[in-house]
Amino acid sequence: MGKLPKGIDMLEFNKAIIDATRPYAVAYKPNLAFYEIHGAKGWEILEQTIRYIGKEHLIIADAKRGDIGNTSGYYARAFYETLKADAVTIHPYMGKDSVTPFLGYPGKWAVVLALTSNPGAMDFEMQRIGEDFLFEKVLRDVATWGNIDEIMFVVGATRIEQLKRVRACVPEHFLLIPGIGTQGGSLDEVMNHAMNSDVGILVNASRTILYASSEKDFANAARAEAAKMASVMAPFIDHL
Amino acid sequence: MGKLPKGIDMLEFNKAIIDATRPYAVAYKPNLAFYEIHGAKGWEILEQTIRYIGKEHLIIADAKRGDIGNTSGYYARAFYETLKADAVTIHPYMGKDSVTPFLGYPGKWAVVLALTSNPGAMDFEMQRIGEDFLFEKVLRDVATWGNIDEIMFVVGATRIEQLKRVRACVPEHFLLIPGIGTQGGSLDEVMNHAMNSDVGILVNASRTILYASSEKDFANAARAEAAKMASVMAPFIDHL
Repeated sequence: MGKLPKGIDMLEFNKAIIDATRPYAVAYKPNLAFYEIHGAKGWEILEQTIRYIGKEHLIIADAKRGDIGNTSGYYARAFYETLKADAVTIHPYMGKDSVTPFLGYPGKWAVVLALTSNPGAMDFEMQRIGEDFLFEKVLRDVATWGNIDEIMFVVGATRIEQLKRVRACVPEHFLLIPGIGTQGGSLDEVMNHAMNSDVGILVNASRTILYASSEKDFANAARAEAAKMASVMAPFIDHL
Repeated sequence: MGKLPKGIDMLEFNKAIIDATRPYAVAYKPNLAFYEIHGAKGWEILEQTIRYIGKEHLIIADAKRGDIGNTSGYYARAFYETLKADAVTIHPYMGKDSVTPFLGYPGKWAVVLALTSNPGAMDFEMQRIGEDFLFEKVLRDVATWGNIDEIMFVVGATRIEQLKRVRACVPEHFLLIPGIGTQGGSLDEVMNHAMNSDVGILVNASRTILYASSEKDFANAARAEAAKMASVMAPFIDHL
Protein backbone atom coordinates (compact mmCIF):
# COMPACT_ATOMS: atom_id res chain seq x y z
CA MET A 1 0.00 0.00 0.00
CA GLY A 2 2.12 2.83 -1.32
CA LYS A 3 -0.32 5.34 0.09
CA LEU A 4 0.18 4.67 3.79
CA PRO A 5 1.53 7.66 5.72
CA LYS A 6 5.28 7.42 6.28
CA GLY A 7 6.41 5.36 9.25
CA ILE A 8 2.99 3.74 9.78
CA ASP A 9 2.74 0.00 9.23
CA MET A 10 -0.36 -1.61 7.78
CA LEU A 11 -1.83 -3.07 10.96
CA GLU A 12 -1.23 0.15 12.87
CA PHE A 13 -2.89 2.06 10.01
CA ASN A 14 -5.88 -0.29 9.98
CA LYS A 15 -6.38 -0.06 13.74
CA ALA A 16 -6.28 3.74 13.66
CA ILE A 17 -8.79 3.85 10.77
CA ILE A 18 -11.09 1.40 12.55
CA ASP A 19 -10.94 3.31 15.83
CA ALA A 20 -11.67 6.58 14.03
CA THR A 21 -14.61 5.29 12.00
CA ARG A 22 -16.39 2.80 14.28
CA PRO A 23 -19.24 5.15 15.23
CA TYR A 24 -20.06 5.86 11.57
CA ALA A 25 -19.59 2.41 10.03
CA VAL A 26 -21.95 -0.56 9.88
CA ALA A 27 -19.45 -2.70 8.01
CA TYR A 28 -15.79 -3.02 7.06
CA LYS A 29 -14.77 -4.42 3.69
CA PRO A 30 -11.08 -5.39 3.57
CA ASN A 31 -9.86 -5.85 -0.01
CA LEU A 32 -7.84 -9.06 -0.23
CA ALA A 33 -5.47 -7.85 -2.96
CA PHE A 34 -3.90 -5.28 -0.64
CA TYR A 35 -3.02 -8.06 1.80
CA GLU A 36 -2.05 -10.75 -0.71
CA ILE A 37 0.56 -8.45 -2.20
CA HIS A 38 2.42 -9.09 1.07
CA GLY A 39 1.93 -12.88 0.83
CA ALA A 40 1.52 -14.94 4.01
CA LYS A 41 2.50 -11.91 6.08
CA GLY A 42 -0.34 -9.96 4.49
CA TRP A 43 -2.85 -12.68 5.34
CA GLU A 44 -1.63 -12.55 8.93
CA ILE A 45 -2.25 -8.78 9.05
CA LEU A 46 -5.70 -9.42 7.58
CA GLU A 47 -6.44 -11.99 10.30
CA GLN A 48 -5.29 -9.54 12.98
CA THR A 49 -7.35 -6.75 11.43
CA ILE A 50 -10.50 -8.86 11.41
CA ARG A 51 -9.97 -9.82 15.04
CA TYR A 52 -9.52 -6.14 15.86
CA ILE A 53 -12.77 -5.14 14.17
CA GLY A 54 -14.62 -7.55 16.45
CA LYS A 55 -18.27 -8.52 16.49
CA GLU A 56 -20.04 -5.15 16.35
CA HIS A 57 -19.56 -4.60 12.62
CA LEU A 58 -20.29 -6.70 9.57
CA ILE A 59 -17.00 -7.86 8.00
CA ILE A 60 -17.08 -8.31 4.24
CA ALA A 61 -14.05 -10.04 2.75
CA ASP A 62 -13.79 -8.39 -0.66
CA ALA A 63 -12.14 -11.41 -2.21
CA LYS A 64 -14.10 -11.94 -5.44
CA ARG A 65 -13.78 -15.72 -5.35
CA GLY A 66 -15.70 -18.37 -7.29
CA ASP A 67 -14.71 -21.81 -8.60
CA ILE A 68 -16.13 -25.28 -9.26
CA GLY A 69 -18.33 -26.54 -6.41
CA ASN A 70 -15.72 -28.58 -4.60
CA THR A 71 -13.28 -25.65 -4.57
CA SER A 72 -15.88 -23.00 -3.73
CA GLY A 73 -16.73 -25.10 -0.69
CA TYR A 74 -13.13 -24.71 0.50
CA TYR A 75 -13.25 -20.96 -0.18
CA ALA A 76 -16.45 -20.64 1.85
CA ARG A 77 -14.81 -22.34 4.81
CA ALA A 78 -11.63 -20.27 4.32
CA PHE A 79 -13.55 -17.01 4.59
CA TYR A 80 -16.41 -17.85 6.95
CA GLU A 81 -14.59 -20.21 9.31
CA THR A 82 -10.83 -19.66 9.15
CA LEU A 83 -10.87 -15.92 8.53
CA LYS A 84 -14.14 -15.39 10.44
CA ALA A 85 -15.54 -12.91 7.92
CA ASP A 86 -19.32 -12.46 7.83
CA ALA A 87 -19.53 -12.11 4.07
CA VAL A 88 -17.47 -12.66 0.93
CA THR A 89 -17.76 -11.18 -2.56
CA ILE A 90 -18.23 -13.73 -5.36
CA HIS A 91 -17.90 -13.87 -9.15
CA PRO A 92 -21.02 -15.38 -10.75
CA TYR A 93 -19.39 -16.29 -14.10
CA MET A 94 -19.10 -20.04 -13.38
CA GLY A 95 -22.76 -20.39 -12.42
CA LYS A 96 -24.85 -22.06 -9.74
CA ASP A 97 -22.50 -24.70 -8.33
CA SER A 98 -19.78 -22.05 -7.96
CA VAL A 99 -22.06 -19.86 -5.79
CA THR A 100 -24.22 -22.23 -3.72
CA PRO A 101 -21.32 -23.54 -1.57
CA PHE A 102 -21.23 -20.02 -0.04
CA LEU A 103 -24.88 -20.38 1.07
CA GLY A 104 -26.37 -22.22 4.03
CA TYR A 105 -24.10 -20.71 6.69
CA PRO A 106 -26.46 -18.99 9.16
CA GLY A 107 -25.57 -15.33 9.56
CA LYS A 108 -23.11 -15.40 6.65
CA TRP A 109 -23.59 -13.65 3.31
CA ALA A 110 -22.62 -14.41 -0.27
CA VAL A 111 -22.19 -11.02 -1.95
CA VAL A 112 -22.48 -11.75 -5.66
CA LEU A 113 -21.16 -9.38 -8.35
CA ALA A 114 -23.96 -8.17 -10.60
CA LEU A 115 -23.20 -4.76 -12.13
CA THR A 116 -19.80 -3.42 -11.14
CA SER A 117 -18.57 0.17 -10.91
CA ASN A 118 -15.66 -0.12 -13.36
CA PRO A 119 -15.59 0.73 -17.10
CA GLY A 120 -15.26 -2.99 -17.98
CA ALA A 121 -18.84 -3.56 -16.81
CA MET A 122 -19.80 -2.62 -20.38
CA ASP A 123 -17.88 -5.56 -21.87
CA PHE A 124 -19.94 -8.48 -20.58
CA GLU A 125 -22.21 -7.44 -17.68
CA MET A 126 -24.07 -5.00 -19.95
CA GLN A 127 -24.35 -7.29 -22.95
CA ARG A 128 -27.86 -8.45 -23.85
CA ILE A 129 -29.02 -12.00 -23.32
CA GLY A 130 -32.43 -11.89 -24.99
CA GLU A 131 -34.25 -8.87 -23.55
CA ASP A 132 -32.12 -8.68 -20.43
CA PHE A 133 -28.62 -7.51 -19.76
CA LEU A 134 -26.32 -10.23 -18.42
CA PHE A 135 -26.34 -8.52 -15.01
CA GLU A 136 -30.14 -8.78 -14.92
CA LYS A 137 -30.00 -12.50 -15.65
CA VAL A 138 -27.39 -12.85 -12.91
CA LEU A 139 -29.61 -10.99 -10.44
CA ARG A 140 -32.74 -12.98 -11.30
CA ASP A 141 -31.06 -16.40 -11.43
CA VAL A 142 -28.83 -16.03 -8.37
CA ALA A 143 -31.81 -14.76 -6.34
CA THR A 144 -33.48 -18.17 -6.87
CA TRP A 145 -30.46 -20.09 -5.54
CA GLY A 146 -30.85 -19.10 -1.89
CA ASN A 147 -32.69 -16.98 0.63
CA ILE A 148 -32.82 -13.23 0.96
CA ASP A 149 -30.91 -13.37 4.24
CA GLU A 150 -27.83 -15.02 2.73
CA ILE A 151 -27.39 -13.32 -0.68
CA MET A 152 -26.48 -9.70 -1.42
CA PHE A 153 -25.53 -8.21 -4.77
CA VAL A 154 -22.79 -5.80 -5.77
CA VAL A 155 -24.09 -2.86 -7.82
CA GLY A 156 -21.70 -0.02 -8.57
CA ALA A 157 -22.58 3.53 -7.51
CA THR A 158 -21.39 4.68 -10.93
CA ARG A 159 -24.38 2.93 -12.58
CA ILE A 160 -27.24 5.06 -11.22
CA GLU A 161 -29.12 4.89 -14.53
CA GLN A 162 -29.38 1.10 -14.08
CA LEU A 163 -30.56 1.06 -10.46
CA LYS A 164 -34.21 0.96 -11.48
CA ARG A 165 -33.54 -2.19 -13.50
CA VAL A 166 -31.62 -3.70 -10.58
CA ARG A 167 -34.48 -3.04 -8.17
CA ALA A 168 -36.97 -4.48 -10.68
CA CYS A 169 -35.00 -7.75 -10.56
CA VAL A 170 -34.30 -7.84 -6.82
CA PRO A 171 -36.61 -5.45 -4.93
CA GLU A 172 -35.91 -7.02 -1.55
CA HIS A 173 -32.23 -7.92 -1.55
CA PHE A 174 -29.49 -5.99 0.14
CA LEU A 175 -27.18 -4.25 -2.32
CA LEU A 176 -23.51 -3.59 -1.61
CA ILE A 177 -22.72 -0.37 -3.44
CA PRO A 178 -19.07 0.49 -4.06
CA GLY A 179 -17.79 3.28 -6.27
CA ILE A 180 -18.64 6.28 -4.09
CA GLY A 181 -15.94 8.94 -4.13
CA THR A 182 -12.73 8.17 -6.01
CA GLN A 183 -14.59 6.14 -8.64
CA GLY A 184 -17.11 8.96 -9.15
CA GLY A 185 -20.40 7.71 -7.68
CA SER A 186 -22.65 10.18 -5.86
CA LEU A 187 -23.97 9.21 -2.43
CA ASP A 188 -27.12 11.35 -2.74
CA GLU A 189 -28.11 9.74 -6.00
CA VAL A 190 -27.47 6.27 -4.65
CA MET A 191 -29.66 6.93 -1.60
CA ASN A 192 -32.42 8.27 -3.84
CA HIS A 193 -32.42 5.37 -6.28
CA ALA A 194 -31.28 2.21 -4.54
CA MET A 195 -32.94 2.22 -1.12
CA ASN A 196 -35.94 0.05 -0.43
CA SER A 197 -38.32 0.20 2.55
CA ASP A 198 -35.78 -1.60 4.76
CA VAL A 199 -32.94 0.63 3.56
CA GLY A 200 -31.57 -2.37 1.69
CA ILE A 201 -28.18 -0.92 0.84
CA LEU A 202 -24.64 -0.96 2.15
CA VAL A 203 -22.73 1.96 0.67
CA ASN A 204 -18.99 1.56 0.53
CA ALA A 205 -16.28 4.18 0.34
CA SER A 206 -12.68 3.02 0.35
CA ARG A 207 -10.03 5.40 -0.90
CA THR A 208 -11.92 8.60 -0.01
CA ILE A 209 -11.85 7.57 3.64
CA LEU A 210 -8.61 5.56 3.87
CA TYR A 211 -6.52 8.16 2.07
CA ALA A 212 -8.36 11.32 3.14
CA SER A 213 -4.95 12.52 4.27
CA SER A 214 -1.52 11.04 3.60
CA GLU A 215 -0.05 12.77 6.65
CA LYS A 216 0.05 11.97 10.35
CA ASP A 217 -3.54 13.24 10.70
CA PHE A 218 -4.90 10.44 8.46
CA ALA A 219 -7.16 8.99 11.16
CA ASN A 220 -8.81 12.31 11.95
CA ALA A 221 -9.23 12.99 8.25
CA ALA A 222 -10.79 9.54 7.80
CA ARG A 223 -13.14 10.18 10.72
CA ALA A 224 -14.24 13.46 9.14
CA GLU A 225 -14.93 11.78 5.77
CA ALA A 226 -16.87 8.95 7.43
CA ALA A 227 -18.86 11.43 9.51
CA LYS A 228 -19.67 13.41 6.37
CA MET A 229 -21.00 10.30 4.65
CA ALA A 230 -23.05 9.38 7.69
CA SER A 231 -24.57 12.86 7.79
CA VAL A 232 -25.56 12.67 4.11
CA MET A 233 -27.22 9.32 4.75
CA ALA A 234 -28.95 10.27 8.01
CA PRO A 235 -31.97 12.13 6.57
CA PHE A 236 -32.77 9.17 4.33
CA ILE A 237 -32.62 6.70 7.20
CA ASP A 238 -33.71 8.49 10.36
CA HIS A 239 -37.43 8.50 9.64
CA LEU A 240 -37.56 4.75 8.97
CA MET B 1 -7.28 -31.22 2.82
CA GLY B 2 -9.18 -34.07 4.41
CA LYS B 3 -7.81 -36.44 1.83
CA LEU B 4 -4.14 -36.33 2.81
CA PRO B 5 -2.76 -39.67 3.96
CA LYS B 6 -2.64 -39.97 7.75
CA GLY B 7 0.38 -38.45 9.46
CA ILE B 8 1.51 -36.51 6.36
CA ASP B 9 1.43 -32.72 6.55
CA MET B 10 0.59 -30.59 3.55
CA LEU B 11 4.07 -29.40 2.63
CA GLU B 12 5.50 -32.89 3.00
CA PHE B 13 2.67 -34.20 0.82
CA ASN B 14 3.28 -31.53 -1.83
CA LYS B 15 7.02 -32.19 -1.94
CA ALA B 16 6.47 -35.93 -2.36
CA ILE B 17 3.93 -35.38 -5.16
CA ILE B 18 6.25 -32.92 -6.91
CA ASP B 19 9.24 -35.25 -6.66
CA ALA B 20 7.19 -38.15 -8.00
CA THR B 21 5.69 -36.28 -10.95
CA ARG B 22 8.45 -33.90 -12.12
CA PRO B 23 9.46 -36.00 -15.15
CA TYR B 24 5.88 -36.14 -16.44
CA ALA B 25 4.71 -32.59 -15.70
CA VAL B 26 5.22 -29.38 -17.64
CA ALA B 27 3.30 -27.30 -15.10
CA TYR B 28 1.93 -27.31 -11.57
CA LYS B 29 -1.34 -25.61 -10.74
CA PRO B 30 -1.81 -25.07 -7.00
CA ASN B 31 -5.43 -24.29 -6.11
CA LEU B 32 -5.51 -21.35 -3.73
CA ALA B 33 -8.65 -22.44 -1.85
CA PHE B 34 -6.86 -25.45 -0.40
CA TYR B 35 -4.23 -23.14 1.11
CA GLU B 36 -6.52 -20.28 2.14
CA ILE B 37 -8.58 -22.65 4.26
CA HIS B 38 -5.51 -22.67 6.52
CA GLY B 39 -5.23 -18.87 6.51
CA ALA B 40 -1.82 -17.20 6.71
CA LYS B 41 -0.25 -20.57 7.52
CA GLY B 42 -1.69 -21.94 4.29
CA TRP B 43 -0.21 -19.08 2.27
CA GLU B 44 3.14 -19.84 3.84
CA ILE B 45 2.88 -23.47 2.75
CA LEU B 46 1.97 -22.26 -0.73
CA GLU B 47 5.03 -20.00 -0.83
CA GLN B 48 7.23 -22.89 0.28
CA THR B 49 5.64 -25.20 -2.28
CA ILE B 50 6.25 -22.75 -5.11
CA ARG B 51 9.88 -22.34 -4.06
CA TYR B 52 10.20 -26.13 -4.01
CA ILE B 53 8.83 -26.51 -7.54
CA GLY B 54 11.58 -24.22 -8.80
CA LYS B 55 12.19 -22.83 -12.27
CA GLU B 56 11.86 -25.93 -14.47
CA HIS B 57 8.07 -26.04 -14.46
CA LEU B 58 5.39 -23.47 -15.23
CA ILE B 59 3.59 -22.52 -12.01
CA ILE B 60 -0.06 -21.57 -12.45
CA ALA B 61 -1.70 -20.03 -9.39
CA ASP B 62 -5.29 -21.24 -9.72
CA ALA B 63 -6.67 -18.25 -7.87
CA LYS B 64 -9.55 -17.07 -10.08
CA ARG B 65 -9.06 -13.40 -9.27
CA GLY B 66 -10.43 -10.32 -11.03
CA ASP B 67 -11.45 -6.87 -9.74
CA ILE B 68 -11.51 -3.21 -10.77
CA GLY B 69 -8.29 -2.10 -12.46
CA ASN B 70 -6.58 -0.62 -9.43
CA THR B 71 -7.21 -3.80 -7.40
CA SER B 72 -6.36 -6.22 -10.23
CA GLY B 73 -3.00 -4.44 -10.43
CA TYR B 74 -2.33 -5.41 -6.83
CA TYR B 75 -3.42 -8.99 -7.50
CA ALA B 76 -1.06 -9.19 -10.49
CA ARG B 77 1.86 -8.11 -8.34
CA ALA B 78 0.74 -10.44 -5.51
CA PHE B 79 0.85 -13.47 -7.81
CA TYR B 80 3.66 -12.62 -10.26
CA GLU B 81 6.03 -10.82 -7.89
CA THR B 82 5.32 -11.77 -4.27
CA LEU B 83 4.27 -15.38 -4.87
CA LYS B 84 6.51 -15.77 -7.96
CA ALA B 85 3.91 -17.71 -9.94
CA ASP B 86 4.24 -17.70 -13.73
CA ALA B 87 0.52 -17.54 -14.39
CA VAL B 88 -2.76 -16.83 -12.63
CA THR B 89 -6.35 -17.79 -13.48
CA ILE B 90 -8.75 -14.87 -13.92
CA HIS B 91 -12.52 -14.26 -13.98
CA PRO B 92 -13.53 -12.19 -17.05
CA TYR B 93 -16.92 -11.05 -15.69
CA MET B 94 -15.82 -7.49 -14.83
CA GLY B 95 -14.37 -6.86 -18.31
CA LYS B 96 -11.28 -5.31 -19.83
CA ASP B 97 -9.88 -3.16 -17.02
CA SER B 98 -10.16 -6.13 -14.65
CA VAL B 99 -8.00 -8.31 -16.94
CA THR B 100 -5.40 -6.01 -18.54
CA PRO B 101 -3.49 -5.33 -15.27
CA PHE B 102 -2.40 -8.99 -15.48
CA LEU B 103 -0.81 -8.36 -18.90
CA GLY B 104 2.52 -6.78 -19.82
CA TYR B 105 4.67 -8.87 -17.48
CA PRO B 106 7.20 -10.62 -19.77
CA GLY B 107 7.06 -14.39 -19.34
CA LYS B 108 3.89 -14.22 -17.22
CA TRP B 109 0.45 -15.44 -18.27
CA ALA B 110 -3.10 -14.34 -17.59
CA VAL B 111 -5.21 -17.50 -17.80
CA VAL B 112 -8.76 -16.28 -18.40
CA LEU B 113 -11.83 -18.40 -17.70
CA ALA B 114 -13.84 -18.98 -20.87
CA LEU B 115 -15.84 -22.23 -20.72
CA THR B 116 -15.45 -24.06 -17.45
CA SER B 117 -15.80 -27.76 -16.67
CA ASN B 118 -18.53 -27.51 -14.02
CA PRO B 119 -22.32 -27.86 -14.48
CA GLY B 120 -22.80 -24.14 -13.77
CA ALA B 121 -21.13 -23.31 -17.10
CA MET B 122 -24.65 -23.65 -18.54
CA ASP B 123 -26.02 -20.78 -16.43
CA PHE B 124 -24.15 -17.83 -17.94
CA GLU B 125 -21.14 -18.98 -20.01
CA MET B 126 -23.42 -20.85 -22.39
CA GLN B 127 -26.08 -18.17 -22.70
CA ARG B 128 -26.40 -16.51 -26.11
CA ILE B 129 -25.31 -12.95 -26.74
CA GLY B 130 -26.53 -12.45 -30.30
CA GLU B 131 -25.24 -15.40 -32.34
CA ASP B 132 -22.45 -16.23 -29.91
CA PHE B 133 -22.38 -17.88 -26.54
CA LEU B 134 -21.04 -15.64 -23.77
CA PHE B 135 -17.87 -17.77 -23.63
CA GLU B 136 -17.27 -17.09 -27.33
CA LYS B 137 -17.59 -13.35 -26.80
CA VAL B 138 -15.17 -13.66 -23.87
CA LEU B 139 -12.66 -15.56 -26.05
CA ARG B 140 -12.89 -13.11 -28.96
CA ASP B 141 -12.83 -9.94 -26.86
CA VAL B 142 -10.14 -10.94 -24.39
CA ALA B 143 -7.92 -12.12 -27.28
CA THR B 144 -7.84 -8.51 -28.53
CA TRP B 145 -6.67 -7.14 -25.17
CA GLY B 146 -3.15 -8.54 -25.26
CA ASN B 147 -0.66 -10.75 -27.09
CA ILE B 148 -0.77 -14.46 -27.67
CA ASP B 149 2.26 -14.98 -25.43
CA GLU B 150 0.58 -13.52 -22.33
CA ILE B 151 -3.04 -14.80 -22.48
CA MET B 152 -4.30 -18.38 -22.15
CA PHE B 153 -7.89 -19.52 -21.77
CA VAL B 154 -9.50 -22.08 -19.50
CA VAL B 155 -11.70 -24.54 -21.39
CA GLY B 156 -13.07 -27.52 -19.48
CA ALA B 157 -12.34 -31.05 -20.69
CA THR B 158 -16.00 -31.88 -20.05
CA ARG B 159 -17.05 -29.59 -22.94
CA ILE B 160 -15.59 -31.53 -25.88
CA GLU B 161 -18.59 -30.71 -28.08
CA GLN B 162 -17.69 -27.02 -27.80
CA LEU B 163 -13.97 -27.30 -28.55
CA LYS B 164 -14.51 -26.65 -32.26
CA ARG B 165 -16.23 -23.36 -31.42
CA VAL B 166 -13.42 -22.47 -29.01
CA ARG B 167 -10.76 -23.11 -31.64
CA ALA B 168 -12.75 -21.07 -34.17
CA CYS B 169 -12.48 -18.09 -31.79
CA VAL B 170 -8.87 -18.59 -30.68
CA PRO B 171 -7.01 -20.92 -33.07
CA GLU B 172 -3.58 -19.90 -31.80
CA HIS B 173 -3.94 -19.42 -28.05
CA PHE B 174 -2.83 -21.87 -25.42
CA LEU B 175 -5.74 -23.54 -23.63
CA LEU B 176 -5.57 -24.70 -20.04
CA ILE B 177 -7.85 -27.73 -19.88
CA PRO B 178 -9.00 -28.94 -16.47
CA GLY B 179 -11.68 -31.52 -15.81
CA ILE B 180 -9.77 -34.68 -16.79
CA GLY B 181 -10.43 -37.61 -14.47
CA THR B 182 -12.62 -36.99 -11.42
CA GLN B 183 -14.74 -34.45 -13.30
CA GLY B 184 -15.26 -36.83 -16.19
CA GLY B 185 -13.23 -35.42 -19.10
CA SER B 186 -11.45 -37.83 -21.47
CA LEU B 187 -7.80 -37.15 -22.26
CA ASP B 188 -7.97 -38.86 -25.69
CA GLU B 189 -10.87 -36.71 -26.80
CA VAL B 190 -9.22 -33.55 -25.57
CA MET B 191 -6.03 -34.34 -27.49
CA ASN B 192 -8.04 -35.03 -30.63
CA HIS B 193 -10.12 -31.86 -30.51
CA ALA B 194 -8.16 -29.12 -28.76
CA MET B 195 -4.59 -29.37 -30.05
CA ASN B 196 -3.29 -26.99 -32.63
CA SER B 197 -0.09 -27.25 -34.68
CA ASP B 198 2.00 -26.06 -31.70
CA VAL B 199 0.21 -28.46 -29.32
CA GLY B 200 -1.45 -25.39 -27.77
CA ILE B 201 -2.89 -27.11 -24.72
CA LEU B 202 -2.02 -27.67 -21.09
CA VAL B 203 -4.06 -30.56 -19.75
CA ASN B 204 -4.62 -30.58 -16.03
CA ALA B 205 -5.47 -33.45 -13.72
CA SER B 206 -5.75 -32.74 -10.01
CA ARG B 207 -7.60 -35.21 -7.84
CA THR B 208 -6.87 -38.27 -10.02
CA ILE B 209 -3.15 -37.75 -9.42
CA LEU B 210 -3.10 -36.19 -5.94
CA TYR B 211 -5.45 -38.75 -4.43
CA ALA B 212 -4.54 -41.77 -6.54
CA SER B 213 -3.97 -43.50 -3.21
CA SER B 214 -4.87 -42.37 0.29
CA GLU B 215 -2.26 -44.65 1.84
CA LYS B 216 1.47 -44.37 2.45
CA ASP B 217 2.13 -45.24 -1.22
CA PHE B 218 0.40 -42.03 -2.43
CA ALA B 219 3.51 -40.68 -4.18
CA ASN B 220 4.09 -43.85 -6.15
CA ALA B 221 0.43 -44.00 -7.06
CA ALA B 222 0.58 -40.35 -8.19
CA ARG B 223 3.67 -41.09 -10.28
CA ALA B 224 1.86 -43.99 -11.97
CA GLU B 225 -1.17 -41.80 -12.79
CA ALA B 226 1.04 -39.01 -14.16
CA ALA B 227 3.06 -41.50 -16.22
CA LYS B 228 -0.17 -42.96 -17.62
CA MET B 229 -1.35 -39.49 -18.69
CA ALA B 230 2.02 -38.75 -20.27
CA SER B 231 1.91 -42.02 -22.22
CA VAL B 232 -1.59 -41.23 -23.57
CA MET B 233 -0.36 -37.82 -24.70
CA ALA B 234 2.96 -38.98 -26.16
CA PRO B 235 1.71 -40.28 -29.54
CA PHE B 236 -0.03 -36.95 -30.17
CA ILE B 237 3.06 -34.91 -29.40
CA ASP B 238 6.10 -36.98 -30.35
CA HIS B 239 5.87 -36.44 -34.11
CA LEU B 240 5.65 -32.66 -33.83
